[in-house]
Amino acid sequence: MTARYDRLLGALREVALVNSVLAVVDWDEQVMMPPGGAEHRAEQKAWLARTAHARQTAAEFGDTLTEAEHEQADAADGSEERAVLRQARRAYDRAVKLPGSLVEELTRTTAHAHHAWVDARKANDPSRFAPWLTKIIALKQQQASCLAAPGQSAYDVLIDEFEPGETTAHLNEIFGALRTPLVDLVGRVMSSGRTVPAAMLARDFAVDAQEALGREAAKTLGYDFERGRLDVSVHPFSTSLGPGDSRITTRYHANRFSDAFFGVLHETGHALYEQGLPAARYGTPLGEAVSLGLHESQSRFWENLVGRSRSFWRFFYPKAQRAFPAALGDVREDDFVAAINGIRPSEIRVEADEATYNLHILLRFELEQALMTGALKADDVPAAWSDALHGLLGIRPDTDDRGCLQDVHWSGGALGYFPTYTLGNIFSAQLFEAAQRDLGDLDAAFERGEFSPLREWLRTHVHQHGQRYLPRDLVTRATGVAPSVEPLLAHLRRKAHEYYGV
Amino acid sequence: MTARYDRLLGALREVALVNSVLAVVDWDEQVMMPPGGAEHRAEQKAWLARTAHARQTAAEFGDTLTEAEHEQADAADGSEERAVLRQARRAYDRAVKLPGSLVEELTRTTAHAHHAWVDARKANDPSRFAPWLTKIIALKQQQASCLAAPGQSAYDVLIDEFEPGETTAHLNEIFGALRTPLVDLVGRVMSSGRTVPAAMLARDFAVDAQEALGREAAKTLGYDFERGRLDVSVHPFSTSLGPGDSRITTRYHANRFSDAFFGVLHETGHALYEQGLPAARYGTPLGEAVSLGLHESQSRFWENLVGRSRSFWRFFYPKAQRAFPAALGDVREDDFVAAINGIRPSEIRVEADEATYNLHILLRFELEQALMTGALKADDVPAAWSDALHGLLGIRPDTDDRGCLQDVHWSGGALGYFPTYTLGNIFSAQLFEAAQRDLGDLDAAFERGEFSPLREWLRTHVHQHGQRYLPRDLVTRATGVAPSVEPLLAHLRRKAHEYYGV
Repeated sequence: MTARYDRLLGALREVALVNSVLAVVDWDEQVMMPPGGAEHRAEQKAWLARTAHARQTAAEFGDTLTEAEHEQADAADGSEERAVLRQARRAYDRAVKLPGSLVEELTRTTAHAHHAWVDARKANDPSRFAPWLTKIIALKQQQASCLAAPGQSAYDVLIDEFEPGETTAHLNEIFGALRTPLVDLVGRVMSSGRTVPAAMLARDFAVDAQEALGREAAKTLGYDFERGRLDVSVHPFSTSLGPGDSRITTRYHANRFSDAFFGVLHETGHALYEQGLPAARYGTPLGEAVSLGLHESQSRFWENLVGRSRSFWRFFYPKAQRAFPAALGDVREDDFVAAINGIRPSEIRVEADEATYNLHILLRFELEQALMTGALKADDVPAAWSDALHGLLGIRPDTDDRGCLQDVHWSGGALGYFPTYTLGNIFSAQLFEAAQRDLGDLDAAFERGEFSPLREWLRTHVHQHGQRYLPRDLVTRATGVAPSVEPLLAHLRRKAHEYYGV
Repeated sequence: MTARYDRLLGALREVALVNSVLAVVDWDEQVMMPPGGAEHRAEQKAWLARTAHARQTAAEFGDTLTEAEHEQADAADGSEERAVLRQARRAYDRAVKLPGSLVEELTRTTAHAHHAWVDARKANDPSRFAPWLTKIIALKQQQASCLAAPGQSAYDVLIDEFEPGETTAHLNEIFGALRTPLVDLVGRVMSSGRTVPAAMLARDFAVDAQEALGREAAKTLGYDFERGRLDVSVHPFSTSLGPGDSRITTRYHANRFSDAFFGVLHETGHALYEQGLPAARYGTPLGEAVSLGLHESQSRFWENLVGRSRSFWRFFYPKAQRAFPAALGDVREDDFVAAINGIRPSEIRVEADEATYNLHILLRFELEQALMTGALKADDVPAAWSDALHGLLGIRPDTDDRGCLQDVHWSGGALGYFPTYTLGNIFSAQLFEAAQRDLGDLDAAFERGEFSPLREWLRTHVHQHGQRYLPRDLVTRATGVAPSVEPLLAHLRRKAHEYYGV
């Protein structure tokens, strides 16, 4: 007897269909749309969000869900049916608590706020974005108060949305376990007396050649361009417009090699997860990524654990030299690999090295908590940002476009999202350790340009499951142990030792 | 009292909003989507078409319309209100006669058929497309039988959809008035003994430079890139994704200058119409183009009446020479202008000269009539095409991809659409004559690079009115006389005389 369960799957697919159209118009907005289209685009997105929400909260949907739960009351723990019902119930209960008007208001506001952020960033003027941030915070507080369980804080509600089961308290534990070791590690690197020359990464790298090399790298790692494409956008991202259409973007600067190259590897990691989800399950929880933390683990996996390894470049560096004979022809492979692994406090999160990166996240995690409680006002963010960066890394941003205006997330209403980046780093290191244990000498494979065994390992242990298991359970199943910060710290300590002798 | 009328405007805008989302996903499909996205895209489009249709045919919409009609019963003939009610009633009556299932089936079928056509054309194999054409014809016959007034033929129904008020009988009169003079004109040109050397147009024109020059030309004519963009697609087109977002596409061949350049001017003409519609009326009949014939008149206006004129090139040829010093450096302006005005029977409609072009349309007009009555089967189209081309122009297509597979239209279900191209040519010549009468020496303005007076003339006499007047009435108002083939024939005879002395 699966008639009612099947009807539920159909209803879930209908909601997914609307959301996939929203993904198309959103991708177009960020990558293609001329400025004149902005106003109407906000209306289009508001309508689509309202429609998806209406479908997901229709009484009929609720009845279908309840009937499917009754029908499948005996489904085994850990079964696919149990997972689908759990995820559908969670999503439905959240959706019905949100008034459609609030969903629409949030969508419309963030559509406008995105353009205000682009504008503020270009003008290096946070005051152009502050009113929008204030409005977004107020809407997110409203959203949290609709969704909160008794005693649950507003920020906890937002975190749980992106990483099911995660809490402020638990994240504070995790960041507590990272903070001192990382500040200490960065301090030892800085006082080691060793520097890693990286000036060659700022030479002249023609954008065309960067694009071609990024494309080749993505293909090498297994990104399928028949089911995706690579474009340019203000803020790099990856998105799926449907099964078989998972796109990535990046941005190019002629004198910054690493930005686009590692950006492409990062988004490729996201897209490999999407391309690895079971297409036949599309639109149901079994065909969707399990959480943002796991998603980020996939991007950081390919960007850092693979893409900054010595063995990857043993294979790939000749290609890079051929692409940029003037810039890299006289650079030894060892010096190049050291340069892309340099550790140094810097302003921009997406350009930060692996060690300082999580301190950038900690900064945002702390500011977000203060914004959500009201302890910090939007107007005071620039100063608070500067002070926090100074406290963690000993530097201040030169300008606000390199400080509090650098990230797109808040303009999109994504508060509580940043911590998933650090979860991603933690998961990625732990998954890499486990893959290495299962597959043997990965470095030897990388040197031969073989990445498919590793990709298949991720497909088997992570991608194919969709949302069948909860995020932390999935990591535990894949690696044999509960998630921990230790593999990440061990990885970073090895790097600090290798390149700085500390 | 306009409360009910205003409610109708709101309801119309809601339908337009859904259709504008369809325009986004359709543009993306044709310009950006990777092959893997095709299957899901068909589902997205089917849902959007179904949703737009459901909105437009909802009982509530019908009530709103009827109430608005009662409220505005005293509105003057020729008033805006009368026009809105006329167009809304026409669209509603047609929509309610079409079952949603048929609309959805047509949308899904044509989405798949489009890809089958691309594939068949690439493989030069009409048998890959024939089953889709058969299916589309059957669906269009179904559609026509839902919509037909008593005694109205299926093809008449389809024509009226694209060009309100137009009929097969009237088009047969028009083509009757064109056929002999055009066959005669082309015959005299061919036997004049004069040829216009055009080999320089097949020299090496770097695609990058073509794109830059096309972009400059579009800008020169007044296309606003802040409210549009220029991209590449298999079949060039123009579309509006909303007010303030009217996009155009083209395709480049390194050794064919004219294709992309005049293609860009053509699509620019369409987009200038869209950009000239009153944005405040967007989503209502007063903010929409009046008919395909008028739309095509705008594209042909800028492509041919302006873009192939001696005076346009007096201004623009130095730019073309700078863009292509190797290809055009040794070509005299006079020889270049003669080359782009050469008359010669050829296979491809979109590359045809102004004189033979309408014979290409006549061919399609006749085949479509036969397809719709069932006298011609999809499998027999390649042979019928070849015979018809031979009868009109004395040549046969070398291959089917240059014959019956050359046009996208049928794959999209657009039967009855081609005749609007000839209407466009007729209207464009008549509008140009009238503008010249009103504005004085246009050639002198073109030589100075001044195109805004002409653009403003079109804005005043055509664009700003939206659908306020019926197509033929709009032309009559703009030019002072009823539409006639004479200005077009006079224009073509002048050209034949100028370049061939006949």
